[in-house]
Amino acid sequence: MSTPIIGIGLLGCGTVGSALVQHIQRRHDELQARLGIDLRVVRIGVRDLERQRGLGIDASLFTTDLGDIVHDPNVDVVVELMGGIEPARSHIIDAIAAGKPVVTANKALLAEHGRSLFDFADKHDTDLFFEAAVAGGIPLIRALRQSLAGEPLTRLMGIVNGTTNFILTEMDESGAEYEDALAEAQELGYAEADPTADVEGHDAAAKAAILAAVGFGASPAVGDVHTDGIANITSVDIAFADRLGYVVKLLAVVEHIAGRGVAARVHPAMLPVAHPLASVRGAFNAVFIEGSEVGELMLYGRGAGGEPTASAVLGDIIDAARNRSSKASAPPVAATGVAMVPLRELANAFYLNLQVLDQPGVLAAVAGVFGRHDVSIRSMEQIGLGDEASLVFITHVAGERNMTATLDDLRALDAVKQVGSVIRVIGVQ
Amino acid sequence: MSTPIIGIGLLGCGTVGSALVQHIQRRHDELQARLGIDLRVVRIGVRDLERQRGLGIDASLFTTDLGDIVHDPNVDVVVELMGGIEPARSHIIDAIAAGKPVVTANKALLAEHGRSLFDFADKHDTDLFFEAAVAGGIPLIRALRQSLAGEPLTRLMGIVNGTTNFILTEMDESGAEYEDALAEAQELGYAEADPTADVEGHDAAAKAAILAAVGFGASPAVGDVHTDGIANITSVDIAFADRLGYVVKLLAVVEHIAGRGVAARVHPAMLPVAHPLASVRGAFNAVFIEGSEVGELMLYGRGAGGEPTASAVLGDIIDAARNRSSKASAPPVAATGVAMVPLRELANAFYLNLQVLDQPGVLAAVAGVFGRHDVSIRSMEQIGLGDEASLVFITHVAGERNMTATLDDLRALDAVKQVGSVIRVIGVQ
Repeated sequence: MSTPIIGIGLLGCGTVGSALVQHIQRRHDELQARLGIDLRVVRIGVRDLERQRGLGIDASLFTTDLGDIVHDPNVDVVVELMGGIEPARSHIIDAIAAGKPVVTANKALLAEHGRSLFDFADKHDTDLFFEAAVAGGIPLIRALRQSLAGEPLTRLMGIVNGTTNFILTEMDESGAEYEDALAEAQELGYAEADPTADVEGHDAAAKAAILAAVGFGASPAVGDVHTDGIANITSVDIAFADRLGYVVKLLAVVEHIAGRGVAARVHPAMLPVAHPLASVRGAFNAVFIEGSEVGELMLYGRGAGGEPTASAVLGDIIDAARNRSSKASAPPVAATGVAMVPLRELANAFYLNLQVLDQPGVLAAVAGVFGRHDVSIRSMEQIGLGDEASLVFITHVAGERNMTATLDDLRALDAVKQVGSVIRVIGVQ
Repeated sequence: MSTPIIGIGLLGCGTVGSALVQHIQRRHDELQARLGIDLRVVRIGVRDLERQRGLGIDASLFTTDLGDIVHDPNVDVVVELMGGIEPARSHIIDAIAAGKPVVTANKALLAEHGRSLFDFADKHDTDLFFEAAVAGGIPLIRALRQSLAGEPLTRLMGIVNGTTNFILTEMDESGAEYEDALAEAQELGYAEADPTADVEGHDAAAKAAILAAVGFGASPAVGDVHTDGIANITSVDIAFADRLGYVVKLLAVVEHIAGRGVAARVHPAMLPVAHPLASVRGAFNAVFIEGSEVGELMLYGRGAGGEPTASAVLGDIIDAARNRSSKASAPPVAATGVAMVPLRELANAFYLNLQVLDQPGVLAAVAGVFGRHDVSIRSMEQIGLGDEASLVFITHVAGERNMTATLDDLRALDAVKQVGSVIRVIGVQ
């Protein structure tokens, strides 16, 4: 059976585009084996041919004639990563009109012209995918469009802008004022030299508009999303929130208002510390979803960055490609022939609790057993005295086999009354 | 344009099945308007016709002849919610062989026979969906199969059993011993009378086997997933973990072992409190996903229960139905004609910070303004003295219009030097 070739035409090749091309090229054979699709980047449109140098991508793929890419018969899927309204919008319309599925990460375009593009794609019975337009690598859009297509959603609340969440986290953790936290974000590359679109909430508002359309079928116009930024938040506000058990987050909130419609807004909000969104720190994004059947969901991850965003774009490309080459809509759960590795061949850190005789020399005997099997102790503590004495250890990462042998030998020691709980520890090196 | 009718044949009608039927029937017109599909439950197979009484479902839909449902020409999608290996497996094979897409929530079946069923569905180019088999209402399987189909995953770590997470959370919060926490879980309906499958980790191990197949292309045999339960965890272990900054969770861990293959295991683990999984409490589920491109993701939600699980099943049904009636693979982002509700018509709780003159009567004047506009004060505190005096308020939920009027009047008060931050508060009634 021949493997269908799916040609990808890329419009724009910045951070996300170049990460995408490199990922597809590096893992071509593995993707083909797993998905049964031969994915090939066949054309890449850029504004300036000079800009592709140093990306390590075959120079012959590049062109400045973007319209030509859309109509190239070898291009099966058009991927728009140029950003901005025009000419991105025109190229997408041309691709859909030509019956080609389109993948885009363009939040500004979808916030402003989403409704007409969604309807145009539906009219042409063609896919328009945009997973990467909201919350980067988080599989949010597919969850809303497919998994929750039948769910009566009541509210979406999201931390959908990493820059502002980084600044607010920094203010919370260090007590810094807004200006200092912003300067640090700029220094670390989390905020741009002109941070307006992020800190004034416009970026989050564009995402809220998209979520209103995808989650609730609304058609928000520009200006329908009330937008407040974070520039006026002070260290006093943060400290006060902290004392009352709240954290300050910039939230995009889209909710069903019974009997009225849908409201969408972006503003700083105080959230109870126990709320799942409250612990989303730094540049991470998360969206909290409430529905009357599914209850509460949260999707959390990296909302920006070349690789995470390219990962979301690739998922969309595979969906579009799959839809052109198979009657089944989801990729196969392929057998890749990987072996199952048994536990005894893994390594872990361990907590263990030994009930021991409270007498001199016990620790030396026990430590000797650990040492003999190359299990290194990270921390040890004695709990209780006399008949109730326990030694509690946390080890460094050690082979499961070594640990099994250690436990066997410990059980044989006279000074050890009982080996109690043995619990693996995640997050210890 | 006529709306395609999609007939659903349901095998089994317990908690999930009856929630599903009621949801589809109650929201039939809304789903049709939004999705362009006329979803109808046409046959329901049960073991005992007596058992359908009291569900409020048309009695003529029920039959005890399950094989008949699969071959009914009016059944376009077969939904298997009976559980167990046989006869569920045979009916699924018959449906796939007949070219009908299948939706199942049967984790035991997929853990044991998943590989042969996945391959059989792939061979027949037919959909086999099973979102509800792992982590109930959380859109995990679709994320792994579609969004992350091209992602080189490195590790999946999940809290995928609500019963054990409820017990461990209870032990952590109250200091209870295992037996007492288990008894409470049983009393509240979170644990069954015979809790073996949950507390010994077998339920989580079945889910780990499915994740190994979906996320890594592995074909685990029964016994390939090392399984330890939580029955030996003591309050001493929990307290010790707490003191060191860890929490104890029952984790299903599936990971890529470079150059070797895939390891899958279920055991109690100590996780650093700052880890996103550490704050997953009570009966909630969550899966933490690590990939070399996408970075870190977490999906969180209700892992069990009739409505959340039925929500996941419905998402699968829509996917299968959509795939039979359209060339586009994702449902349209439909315009439902809902109105956008402006912020001024909403209600919120508010934090606000007023810089005031430190003189007698200020609070009375300020409180009078709040009262005049029906804004009720939940808490008030004075911060600082003299020139630096601030009054900080948190209100009960009040209309945005009332709050705007309140702020206008406060600004006009002589005693108010400045209205500082105004931040909406989520989670206050």
